[in-house]
Amino acid sequence: MGLSIDLNCDMGESYGAWKMGNDEDVLEYVSSANIACGFHGGDPGTMRRTVAAALARGVALGAHPSLPDLAGFGRRVMQVSPAEAYDFMVYQIGALAGVAASQGARLHHVKVHGALYNMAAKDRALSDALCRAMRDVDANLVLYGLAGSEHIRAAEALGVPVAQEVFADRSYQDDGSLTPRSHSGAMITDVDKAIEQVLRMVQEGKVRSVSGKDVPVRADTLCIHGDQPNAVVFASGIRRALETAGITVKTVPAPRAAA
Amino acid sequence: MGLSIDLNCDMGESYGAWKMGNDEDVLEYVSSANIACGFHGGDPGTMRRTVAAALARGVALGAHPSLPDLAGFGRRVMQVSPAEAYDFMVYQIGALAGVAASQGARLHHVKVHGALYNMAAKDRALSDALCRAMRDVDANLVLYGLAGSEHIRAAEALGVPVAQEVFADRSYQDDGSLTPRSHSGAMITDVDKAIEQVLRMVQEGKVRSVSGKDVPVRADTLCIHGDQPNAVVFASGIRRALETAGITVKTVPAPRAAA
Amino acid sequence: MGLSIDLNCDMGESYGAWKMGNDEDVLEYVSSANIACGFHGGDPGTMRRTVAAALARGVALGAHPSLPDLAGFGRRVMQVSPAEAYDFMVYQIGALAGVAASQGARLHHVKVHGALYNMAAKDRALSDALCRAMRDVDANLVLYGLAGSEHIRAAEALGVPVAQEVFADRSYQDDGSLTPRSHSGAMITDVDKAIEQVLRMVQEGKVRSVSGKDVPVRADTLCIHGDQPNAVVFASGIRRALETAGITVKTVPAPRAAA
Amino acid sequence: MGLSIDLNCDMGESYGAWKMGNDEDVLEYVSSANIACGFHGGDPGTMRRTVAAALARGVALGAHPSLPDLAGFGRRVMQVSPAEAYDFMVYQIGALAGVAASQGARLHHVKVHGALYNMAAKDRALSDALCRAMRDVDANLVLYGLAGSEHIRAAEALGVPVAQEVFADRSYQDDGSLTPRSHSGAMITDVDKAIEQVLRMVQEGKVRSVSGKDVPVRADTLCIHGDQPNAVVFASGIRRALETAGITVKTVPAPRAAA
Repeated sequence: MGLSIDLNCDMGESYGAWKMGNDEDVLEYVSSANIACGFHGGDPGTMRRTVAAALARGVALGAHPSLPDLAGFGRRVMQVSPAEAYDFMVYQIGALAGVAASQGARLHHVKVHGALYNMAAKDRALSDALCRAMRDVDANLVLYGLAGSEHIRAAEALGVPVAQEVFADRSYQDDGSLTPRSHSGAMITDVDKAIEQVLRMVQEGKVRSVSGKDVPVRADTLCIHGDQPNAVVFASGIRRALETAGITVKTVPAPRAAA
Repeated sequence: MGLSIDLNCDMGESYGAWKMGNDEDVLEYVSSANIACGFHGGDPGTMRRTVAAALARGVALGAHPSLPDLAGFGRRVMQVSPAEAYDFMVYQIGALAGVAASQGARLHHVKVHGALYNMAAKDRALSDALCRAMRDVDANLVLYGLAGSEHIRAAEALGVPVAQEVFADRSYQDDGSLTPRSHSGAMITDVDKAIEQVLRMVQEGKVRSVSGKDVPVRADTLCIHGDQPNAVVFASGIRRALETAGITVKTVPAPRAAA
Repeated sequence: MGLSIDLNCDMGESYGAWKMGNDEDVLEYVSSANIACGFHGGDPGTMRRTVAAALARGVALGAHPSLPDLAGFGRRVMQVSPAEAYDFMVYQIGALAGVAASQGARLHHVKVHGALYNMAAKDRALSDALCRAMRDVDANLVLYGLAGSEHIRAAEALGVPVAQEVFADRSYQDDGSLTPRSHSGAMITDVDKAIEQVLRMVQEGKVRSVSGKDVPVRADTLCIHGDQPNAVVFASGIRRALETAGITVKTVPAPRAAA
Repeated sequence: MGLSIDLNCDMGESYGAWKMGNDEDVLEYVSSANIACGFHGGDPGTMRRTVAAALARGVALGAHPSLPDLAGFGRRVMQVSPAEAYDFMVYQIGALAGVAASQGARLHHVKVHGALYNMAAKDRALSDALCRAMRDVDANLVLYGLAGSEHIRAAEALGVPVAQEVFADRSYQDDGSLTPRSHSGAMITDVDKAIEQVLRMVQEGKVRSVSGKDVPVRADTLCIHGDQPNAVVFASGIRRALETAGITVKTVPAPRAAA
């Protein structure tokens, strides 16, 4: 059986009269959609339309829960207890699961948004709470978490199915973590370089760090950013390169087939 | 088989640091809990605790969705389209269903909150949308709606199970509607009179209107108010009177037994 | 002394990560800015930047207060009491006045947003409350209200300075009211027709209604919409036509000169 | 001239239907009110009523701005930039100043709320931004900040008038900081001990630390907590003890007399 990878993208981050992203366009190229659940974007109407658009293209539905911070788009670190984080997850996953159910579908995965994603990657007590929340709402949900992070380890310890996430447009450190955005060289803006990094991660399980070292990495799903000017160019370019290399683009297998 | 009635109460309407109601006390006397879902009260932590408290006492879980108006506690009429109202319902029912699922339970019913409850009682297009939302998320959910209202008729036409709701502490008009709160004589503050009204509704299917006319009414579930100073006195008094009269207090049967 | 008119535009309606409008471009053509105050758009950072941009171009600062409805962009009618509306106004005008003060400036006018603007045009008790709020915070503030509306009459009765607002891109009824958007012919999309309507309102004090009748109208200020695709084309075209016709574009005189 | 101290209390922290605190009762005993501005509590109607109640008793009006976190009551640390914090301050101070102006009054001071208060006490860049915001809106406003903290030093460096705040019901460390609430012995629940600590701070400028060391402290204003069960007992007891000791209770002098 040949190589494969999932392409995921954050979606449904518009809010009321405000639009964000090119969801319709990007949905053509991805296999999994991470849909905002109202805490950083995604009012109920936007959630309904985004679920419908994903279903129409056979793209797997995932929840994209956030810290409660609409004005900050979920990007500001907040000191929340594991119990609070658990409650935020249950609420948001439930809300999106309700939208999916109303269209005859079920959720497939969960990818945490913004500051909470980064906090969970390093904080085991927090990521334990986030994983228990997923499992308690629906044990079939797959966690999409930063490859090699505490979040992945927490999920594995709790028996929560995982997909390790990698990035085409971010550089890596020697320890396998992402170069912080504040550092020069954090972002990979050249599409060819991004494609090269992705192909090597899928084909060889390795990524070249900023210091030139080969670092092992597991690439189950690749994050496609949908809210940037060249989002569609990036998404289509990466998909084409993967397919040309004989790598199948498909969503991550789940204990229960996604609806 | 003897007579029976359900006693329901709005619950979980605290928000963050602000407390409301005497949920723990009132739960001793009711058979159904209508739990706020975050739009007028009920942050995710309050929802978790309220679901747990209801489950601990075998009280049926219901969603209590609202217009999105935290500062107005869902009591201000807002002109929303049926499509918007549908989306609000799906989101909030889903969120509470997620909380219930995380505790191994399922929702039993839906009672709409505040201004939206009153709007739905008179507006068929709106109540159609609300009922479709319930059915689309989970066809087993029972609608708790104002007895004899458009909301009940919409549910019946769509095949949504219904429980007709009556009030002990409100007087009725000749057409079976509630006397508006702005009128004198709208509220029944005397516990004995309230009990008398309830017993007659359950035993004879009639209520004496403010003009002295006997009006037919179907009493499947009785609303107990939990946020008033004498809430517990009222709730315990009514429950005792019902049981003394040989009327069983139990929740409304649903297509699927409540968890 | 020659003819003059003010051109006003709603501004600062972005919110956090979400952008709206072409404020920088439209500011080149208008003499008054109506700046969102956080209830329908306009987070504190956006308010600061918008005030700075308006001051840099010598455009008069106005508050653009709304009903509290971020998800509905202040476009949904809410039943609020005059007392509630008074409080909403005081809060939002105060907040923007604080931003202006922090940049050494003062507010010049107030234009109410969205649903509340339309409600006030017809509801005298509501518009009384809105005008008292303005006056109580700062008696020098000029009300920008729908020409010929109850809102204008309420302001005049209370001694609040007024600027009567007209529209270039909306058609008028025989009674001088705007044709509701739900009617065909409500919008004037042709720039030349819009210009013709504006010139006649300024030069002759008349507007041709949809039924062909000449209706008197007072045109102190003209609303320029900034959030439409051709906003800049429209704004620049109207400004050029006014200046070519010898009509000065300048803000409305206030009891106190705007900072 | 004799000794004096200001007694301040957080106020107006109700929100819509939810009540908090015993503002009316506590106002009898304090000389300064710190009034919530909508970000952690205090809707516009509550702000109006609280300002009116304080003015009726001659209590000085202060703004009590917070991080934007209604559900967390402003108690959760959020990573905000100094620029964001500046904007939050300007907006909230302006809003309350608008409410005060609508009642013919002006603000006297600013006390930052909750997590932001504690963050500012230790973070000079943040407290610089908070102090510049106060000064830019109104250079007469007095900062109420934790005695001996970075916030006080930032204000002094910027020429912002300060009142150093001390606590009757909290114990102190050897370095003059408050014992963290997570430590045993952080809270002083005995009214007599609290009174003893206050009297010594005012009369001798010293406080006995938890380790038994005498630490110098400047006590311009004492924080009275209004949201605790025995708030009134505490407030009245402290006020009586101060007056019995010949210490005048009055607000802090400001460059401009409070309205």
